[in-house]
Amino acid sequence: MIVLSDSALDALLAQDVPYGDLTTDSLGIADQPARMSFAARAAMVLAGSEEAARLVEKAGGRVTRVSPSGTRLEAGAVFLEADGPAGALHRAWKVAQTLTEYASGIASRARRIVDAAPGVTVACTRKNFPGAKDLSVKAVIAGGAVMHRLGLSETLLVFPEHRAFLPGPPEDWIAALRRKAPEKKIVVEAGSVEEAVALAKAGADVIQLEKLPPEAAAAVIAATRALTPPPMVAPAGGVTEANAAAYAAAGCRLLVTSAPFFGPPADVKVTLRPA
Amino acid sequence: MIVLSDSALDALLAQDVPYGDLTTDSLGIADQPARMSFAARAAMVLAGSEEAARLVEKAGGRVTRVSPSGTRLEAGAVFLEADGPAGALHRAWKVAQTLTEYASGIASRARRIVDAAPGVTVACTRKNFPGAKDLSVKAVIAGGAVMHRLGLSETLLVFPEHRAFLPGPPEDWIAALRRKAPEKKIVVEAGSVEEAVALAKAGADVIQLEKLPPEAAAAVIAATRALTPPPMVAPAGGVTEANAAAYAAAGCRLLVTSAPFFGPPADVKVTLRPA
Amino acid sequence: MIVLSDSALDALLAQDVPYGDLTTDSLGIADQPARMSFAARAAMVLAGSEEAARLVEKAGGRVTRVSPSGTRLEAGAVFLEADGPAGALHRAWKVAQTLTEYASGIASRARRIVDAAPGVTVACTRKNFPGAKDLSVKAVIAGGAVMHRLGLSETLLVFPEHRAFLPGPPEDWIAALRRKAPEKKIVVEAGSVEEAVALAKAGADVIQLEKLPPEAAAAVIAATRALTPPPMVAPAGGVTEANAAAYAAAGCRLLVTSAPFFGPPADVKVTLRPA
Amino acid sequence: MIVLSDSALDALLAQDVPYGDLTTDSLGIADQPARMSFAARAAMVLAGSEEAARLVEKAGGRVTRVSPSGTRLEAGAVFLEADGPAGALHRAWKVAQTLTEYASGIASRARRIVDAAPGVTVACTRKNFPGAKDLSVKAVIAGGAVMHRLGLSETLLVFPEHRAFLPGPPEDWIAALRRKAPEKKIVVEAGSVEEAVALAKAGADVIQLEKLPPEAAAAVIAATRALTPPPMVAPAGGVTEANAAAYAAAGCRLLVTSAPFFGPPADVKVTLRPA
Amino acid sequence: MIVLSDSALDALLAQDVPYGDLTTDSLGIADQPARMSFAARAAMVLAGSEEAARLVEKAGGRVTRVSPSGTRLEAGAVFLEADGPAGALHRAWKVAQTLTEYASGIASRARRIVDAAPGVTVACTRKNFPGAKDLSVKAVIAGGAVMHRLGLSETLLVFPEHRAFLPGPPEDWIAALRRKAPEKKIVVEAGSVEEAVALAKAGADVIQLEKLPPEAAAAVIAATRALTPPPMVAPAGGVTEANAAAYAAAGCRLLVTSAPFFGPPADVKVTLRPA
Amino acid sequence: MIVLSDSALDALLAQDVPYGDLTTDSLGIADQPARMSFAARAAMVLAGSEEAARLVEKAGGRVTRVSPSGTRLEAGAVFLEADGPAGALHRAWKVAQTLTEYASGIASRARRIVDAAPGVTVACTRKNFPGAKDLSVKAVIAGGAVMHRLGLSETLLVFPEHRAFLPGPPEDWIAALRRKAPEKKIVVEAGSVEEAVALAKAGADVIQLEKLPPEAAAAVIAATRALTPPPMVAPAGGVTEANAAAYAAAGCRLLVTSAPFFGPPADVKVTLRPA
Repeated sequence: MIVLSDSALDALLAQDVPYGDLTTDSLGIADQPARMSFAARAAMVLAGSEEAARLVEKAGGRVTRVSPSGTRLEAGAVFLEADGPAGALHRAWKVAQTLTEYASGIASRARRIVDAAPGVTVACTRKNFPGAKDLSVKAVIAGGAVMHRLGLSETLLVFPEHRAFLPGPPEDWIAALRRKAPEKKIVVEAGSVEEAVALAKAGADVIQLEKLPPEAAAAVIAATRALTPPPMVAPAGGVTEANAAAYAAAGCRLLVTSAPFFGPPADVKVTLRPA
Repeated sequence: MIVLSDSALDALLAQDVPYGDLTTDSLGIADQPARMSFAARAAMVLAGSEEAARLVEKAGGRVTRVSPSGTRLEAGAVFLEADGPAGALHRAWKVAQTLTEYASGIASRARRIVDAAPGVTVACTRKNFPGAKDLSVKAVIAGGAVMHRLGLSETLLVFPEHRAFLPGPPEDWIAALRRKAPEKKIVVEAGSVEEAVALAKAGADVIQLEKLPPEAAAAVIAATRALTPPPMVAPAGGVTEANAAAYAAAGCRLLVTSAPFFGPPADVKVTLRPA
Repeated sequence: MIVLSDSALDALLAQDVPYGDLTTDSLGIADQPARMSFAARAAMVLAGSEEAARLVEKAGGRVTRVSPSGTRLEAGAVFLEADGPAGALHRAWKVAQTLTEYASGIASRARRIVDAAPGVTVACTRKNFPGAKDLSVKAVIAGGAVMHRLGLSETLLVFPEHRAFLPGPPEDWIAALRRKAPEKKIVVEAGSVEEAVALAKAGADVIQLEKLPPEAAAAVIAATRALTPPPMVAPAGGVTEANAAAYAAAGCRLLVTSAPFFGPPADVKVTLRPA
Repeated sequence: MIVLSDSALDALLAQDVPYGDLTTDSLGIADQPARMSFAARAAMVLAGSEEAARLVEKAGGRVTRVSPSGTRLEAGAVFLEADGPAGALHRAWKVAQTLTEYASGIASRARRIVDAAPGVTVACTRKNFPGAKDLSVKAVIAGGAVMHRLGLSETLLVFPEHRAFLPGPPEDWIAALRRKAPEKKIVVEAGSVEEAVALAKAGADVIQLEKLPPEAAAAVIAATRALTPPPMVAPAGGVTEANAAAYAAAGCRLLVTSAPFFGPPADVKVTLRPA
Repeated sequence: MIVLSDSALDALLAQDVPYGDLTTDSLGIADQPARMSFAARAAMVLAGSEEAARLVEKAGGRVTRVSPSGTRLEAGAVFLEADGPAGALHRAWKVAQTLTEYASGIASRARRIVDAAPGVTVACTRKNFPGAKDLSVKAVIAGGAVMHRLGLSETLLVFPEHRAFLPGPPEDWIAALRRKAPEKKIVVEAGSVEEAVALAKAGADVIQLEKLPPEAAAAVIAATRALTPPPMVAPAGGVTEANAAAYAAAGCRLLVTSAPFFGPPADVKVTLRPA
Repeated sequence: MIVLSDSALDALLAQDVPYGDLTTDSLGIADQPARMSFAARAAMVLAGSEEAARLVEKAGGRVTRVSPSGTRLEAGAVFLEADGPAGALHRAWKVAQTLTEYASGIASRARRIVDAAPGVTVACTRKNFPGAKDLSVKAVIAGGAVMHRLGLSETLLVFPEHRAFLPGPPEDWIAALRRKAPEKKIVVEAGSVEEAVALAKAGADVIQLEKLPPEAAAAVIAATRALTPPPMVAPAGGVTEANAAAYAAAGCRLLVTSAPFFGPPADVKVTLRPA
């Protein structure tokens, strides 16, 4: 998947090394032949490697090998190799390293949730770092998860903050939504088992459970199983790799989570030496 | 401090809600009068509140109160209040919330390191999330820290990856750097006490210790105290709020850290209800 | 709804009048006080008036009155008035006029389809003029229609061009889609009544009929009425204000159309004279 | 002619398929080898094919054949062929198709006016869809027409809306214009034969007739033939392929028209199938 | 005249002071009340003052007085005053100063040529500093001159480098140009009196003399005076304030020059002190 | 060194020749094979040639030879050759020529100062033409000079305009600066020998002398030689190729100058003819 535009990558380089690496240039070593490699320090799911490779090429290096986003790497596995003048490789080094570290961190955490709940769809929220949506979405997909919503303008998700403005019973506004947006599923957030069941009976397609434990999810599923069709019951708020299996065991087929965004970058070891 | 441009804020809104909140619009509640407030769920150092306020105004709301970046907030403290049509506030809600959460997370972690080592300068690296440098730098400063380097083109930092290309003794290239860039301090990364002392004796202005413990920092300081002038000894790599005091006690006056970037967002509670 | 960013409006002006109106400036009349008004030459649904007003202000004029997008105007109705120096009004004139003409053309055509099929949802495709998506979407919504899909990355629509790559029966890939994207409705394009019925029985949520007449739509609806739940049957390809009522009478609750994009601009009369 | 920048094309793709075609990806067919071709459904003049080809390449496809803008195509003629992974071709399909359809629609209508009035220059106004000027201008040129004015800052065109601010006789301000802008022709819009003749006698280089019939144009030409030099008489407002020949027969050597912008897109048939 | 967009001004500030003035901030004086004024050190024609004022406001200052572009200033005359926090004024200081210095330098040199040749039109080429066209054009106009051509796509100027590709006599291609672009004057560059006269006789509207002295211009004018109409004879290449009067005396009514772009910035004295 | 982004180069072309060279196109010679070469009219240091080459390629030409920025050229030396269709070469001609002329002018002037003071570091200020920083910095470096400061946010330079806000003696605020920004050298501007000596004794690392003659610089150096370490004494304001040697002889090892920005472009001769 192609995600970051040339302009975005040019901007990353321009912000970090607008006029080259002053250290390399002042030391007079910019033209020496060099070689650079990127490797995982610990097991991780790779993401952003295509962008890293393009950054190296834009800086004046030549990429001789690169693994695709989504690759599972063992500790020590090399995923990118390049050669070129020392000045070129020094320009790209940190930008490319940081990019793969953050993206792979997200991908690895997403992957662990996916692996913890086989057969369940893991959907990430859009609580990514502001200004970094493209890379974050790419990392989510590289980790085997999907995006919950890309934005507010194309999907329906009724929060309590919407419902506070609605006088009538849920049947009313759910029917109205279905008429206005017949191609969208109606997703509704519920804060308790009772609320969840009531919204499902009123016709919601997906019930998003806000910070309810697996047992609550199981209770909702049991209480709505007989509906035609039964709603999708999706826990959200607090879903992590630690409890994903429990939610899956409770019968959930969809987990909504922000957890992949909220951890440290993966650790990428860069070697840069004379060729 | 003004940081995010109007274009950057417009882009955040355009990416998240290009054509309004479909849910609000489909429910027919967009024109109802509403009120929104942002509060800290736990104690935190606020950052990005000016940008949050501008986002709310751009979306069509009216901000009636906002606290400045850098404010220390107790749990429950409200820092932004706005009113306006429900559609406007729903447009801005999540973008503004996520922005303050990430920025305040960085500011709060930076502040904790600063507070742990009174009188010491805490300098953050540029290992921020790629594409989010402006907000990250603003958050660092709001937390009372400074930036270590803004990029590669205006400061000197000699890594082992530079030295591998230099045949001669450090005295030679340090003298060359001083001649070429007489307005810059010469910062050099060292991986051991011996290396640090040797580089200091060769004339480096700042010795950046890569992942060495406080005792090692103390040893370098002791061994270089008699130099004229003595170098600045700056631990880097692994500096956190847990060990900042120990480094300070070891005599370090400058700590270099990426830790503020590597944690979860602060938790901001948003209330949005009919006015 | 706020749609066009300041940068987009600045770009429109910069492209058309980068350095002012040479004619006005060369005639030496740029500083004379002037007044400008925009009126509908024929009945129309207004769109883009907020952007027109902002263009006038950016060019140096002062808007004294403007009607909102979505307003139904009779022939001759004035919807924007401004005053200011002749040079400012001449700068904005044609850009603002053309913008409201194109946007109102789309809104008016969308409105006519909506009015022709009361109670039916009219969804416009994204076959807008390339590079003009924002204004086009705003116009669609001003006309009372909705957007069918904003793009390819957040909705599912299975074309024959997808199915050609799928060996198995529709039941298989529909089940797979439901598992992978449980929050999306599965929309499938069908080219005949038989195909439509088969896809509905295989589980598709929405059957999009490619260029089939109202009678065919009625036949599909009749043949799938007993399914639980019955699919949404949506004619697409060739839906216009001329046949919308017939499709509605056939039982369709959703019409998909590109027709609003494919006509001439509305006709806006601009008066610009000394104040 | 190269017109759309890489950034513009990247933006078109980013707006339509920011993260790939969800349908193709969810169906698991993105990596299958595929082939795509574009053909004219009816006779048309091609425009935008170079941009379509670049879009396909940017999306990850490989273009094996493409005809240049300006080519006259018979019904059924293929003008672009590409192969590549199904995911890549699905990403580019609709964006590239819509772009060539709109551009070729303009080019074809321009060409028909040009062909209807051999030996006459057909100049298109800048009443293109706002935000789509570059593609529109390219299409005009591909159709054999020229642009009337690219903007307000480099040419002179005196409207009645300018003249309303001028107290003196036309001789005065025409002389002033000639002195201020000696490298520009003085174009003046006239609303009647009498006005046209008077302005020509006052020294205007080009008389643009606003919505006057061919007979009126002939009358103006007859009445100004003896001037040294005689003015260029250019009908504008309502010039179409239906009346272009009549204006040419009336002696006009220049026709100004917006008609090419005001019709439906050309119809391009895309075939996308397994390779 | 409004020329530089908000984005352009934001970019200037972002490039120079992305995160505030480190000196002011580190000294802890950013919040002290301050006052700033800009004055001409020597007589000059002001340009760019509107942009300077907007920069000051964007940086957080408040402009209390500003003179418009085009104002003739005596030595010592103050043209911009502002107050605000010291940090805000320090942010804007150098960017606003440099902008007015360069723009006023161009405007002043343009003005001197205009004043040296009363009644003659002075047209500046587009040999401005690459990337700074908007400000340069604004400065030219502020100096009382006009732009020769804004670009290559809307005017005709036949260089010898075009003619080298044309086999036939000038009469042929001049006629062709007139037919193809009937709304444009045909400007032709000539390198000798003979060539100039021949081209005029062949029908060129404007003869641009490449680096020919005033006497040569006089000779061309004399030799072409009897043509109907006589051509405009415009010296270009080497026209300066030193020889403008001589060219005017030779009968030239249009001078083409790059000289205003090729000198030092005007000298603007900035005073910034506690309020 | 890579500096101007593709977007920047695309913008230069789009601004100058958005729709091709109208002259070339109207003459019907755009497809003829042509050849173009760029040569120095006088001895100069080349800068911007890489960008010129990319412009030619973007316009549709093929570069067959190009010399790198920094090359010293004799009068008449060719530094860029290209071939391609006449239309492509005409599109790129003036943009590429002007770019290399301005950049080489700066580089040549910088080089002359560098050559006039062997062994001394020549640092250029950021008083470049607003909006043209990237090309200007590249030219400075091509000329063998360095940049004094890239902006206000990463270096310390205390002006009298800062000191006016500071009540205490310089020892106080210099100590504060050293604590707050321990990785930066403290640069201070002084307006007299006495002030310079006092600031040096107070601890400043670099004393920037504002418009003081070489003898004054010598006096400051003599009076501060015994300090440990002695300060760097850097003349600024009025440093040119005429007095650089005198400052060097006075003992200065660093010269700060804006002079390279303040002269005419270098003169580049372009030949464009049929191939």
